[in-house]
Amino acid sequence: MTPRRTGRRPGNPDTRQAILAAARTTFAERGFDAASIRVIAAAAGVDPALVHHYFGSKEELFRATVEIPLDPAELLPVVLAGGVDGVGERLVRTFLGVWDSPAGKAAVALLRSAVNNDWTARLLREFLVTQVLRRVLDHLDVPPAELPLRGSLVATQMVGLAMMRYVIRLEPVASADPETLVRAIGPTVQRYLTGDLPG
Amino acid sequence: MTPRRTGRRPGNPDTRQAILAAARTTFAERGFDAASIRVIAAAAGVDPALVHHYFGSKEELFRATVEIPLDPAELLPVVLAGGVDGVGERLVRTFLGVWDSPAGKAAVALLRSAVNNDWTARLLREFLVTQVLRRVLDHLDVPPAELPLRGSLVATQMVGLAMMRYVIRLEPVASADPETLVRAIGPTVQRYLTGDLPG
Repeated sequence: MTPRRTGRRPGNPDTRQAILAAARTTFAERGFDAASIRVIAAAAGVDPALVHHYFGSKEELFRATVEIPLDPAELLPVVLAGGVDGVGERLVRTFLGVWDSPAGKAAVALLRSAVNNDWTARLLREFLVTQVLRRVLDHLDVPPAELPLRGSLVATQMVGLAMMRYVIRLEPVASADPETLVRAIGPTVQRYLTGDLPG
Repeated sequence: MTPRRTGRRPGNPDTRQAILAAARTTFAERGFDAASIRVIAAAAGVDPALVHHYFGSKEELFRATVEIPLDPAELLPVVLAGGVDGVGERLVRTFLGVWDSPAGKAAVALLRSAVNNDWTARLLREFLVTQVLRRVLDHLDVPPAELPLRGSLVATQMVGLAMMRYVIRLEPVASADPETLVRAIGPTVQRYLTGDLPG
C-alpha cells in the first residue's frame, strides 16, 4: 500500500497560487486593513468562498503571503502576562524564541527579500504593524496618537537585532545567550513602548 | 578644446579592479586588522607600492572596497565633542546626517548587498567594528572586555534605524524629523555605550 496524505486537501495548486499572488498584490497596494477577501478573490478571478476554503481568515491568508508559519496572536498572552512591567523584556524574549526556532528561517527569508523588493518591504511593514506592534500596543493604555512612533521605534530595535544576530552575524550579538540580549535590549523596548518620548 | 581631467590619474582600470577584488577577498577572509597591503598586493599580483599609489592607506582601500566615499574618522570629533554626556545623541545625529546626505545612497546599497551576500556582510561587519564603533568606544573609557557587546548593541540599534528609515521605510520613522529620532534613540545608544549592561 502506498501512503496516503490525510487532512484538508490542498486544492488546485494553480488556484492557490493565483489567490496568493492576488493577495500579495492587494496587501502590498492597499495595506492589510483596506484589503478584503472580496477584492483579493476578484483579482484572482475566484469566488470569495474559495479563498476562505483554502486559506481561512484574512489574517491566515496574510501570513501565507509572507510565508510566516506562525500566528503572532498566539504569542501575545506571553508578552502581555504581568502587564506593563517587563513587557519590553518579554517582547524581546518571545521575539528571540521565534527567530531561534525553525520558524526563524522563514523570518530571515522575509527580511532578506524585503531589503531588495519594494513589495515584500510593504508586506513586511504591514505584518509588523498590524500583526505584531499594534496588538501589543493596544493592550498598554498608550495614547493612540503615540502608537505609530512607539511602534516604529520598537521596529527599529527589533529588526536591527534580527539583522545583526541572524543576517550580518556580528559577534557577540550573533551567538549571545538570549537572556543576555533580553536584559540588554529589553529596557530599550520598554522605553519605546511606555516611556517618555519626544514630541 | 576638449576638457581635460585633472588630479591624480586613475591608473590602469584593470589593475585597479584587480586590487579591489583582492582587497575585498582579503578583508572579508582575514578581517580588517589582519589584512595587509602586502597580502592584498600579492593576491592581486602587483607591487605593494602600486596599491598605495592607487588607493592610499589601508583605511582608504577598505572604504573603496565597501564603496563608502566618506571617512568616519573625520566625523569622530563631532561625535566626541563634549565628552561622554550626550555622545549617544551626537552619534545618532551624525549617523542620520550621513545617511540623509548623498553618501547615504552608498550606505543603503552596502546594507542591501550585505543582506544577500555573505562576503559583503563580512565587509560591513568589519567596517562597523573597525571604522566606526571601536573608534567611538576607544574614547569613552569603557573596560576593554565590554567593548564587543557594547559595540554590537549599538550596531543593532543603528542598523535597525537605517533599515526602517531608508530600506523598509516604516512610518513615521521613515520621514521623521532627524531631531525627533535623535531624542528618541539617542538615550538607547547612550546606554549601550556607557550604561549598565548585563554580564
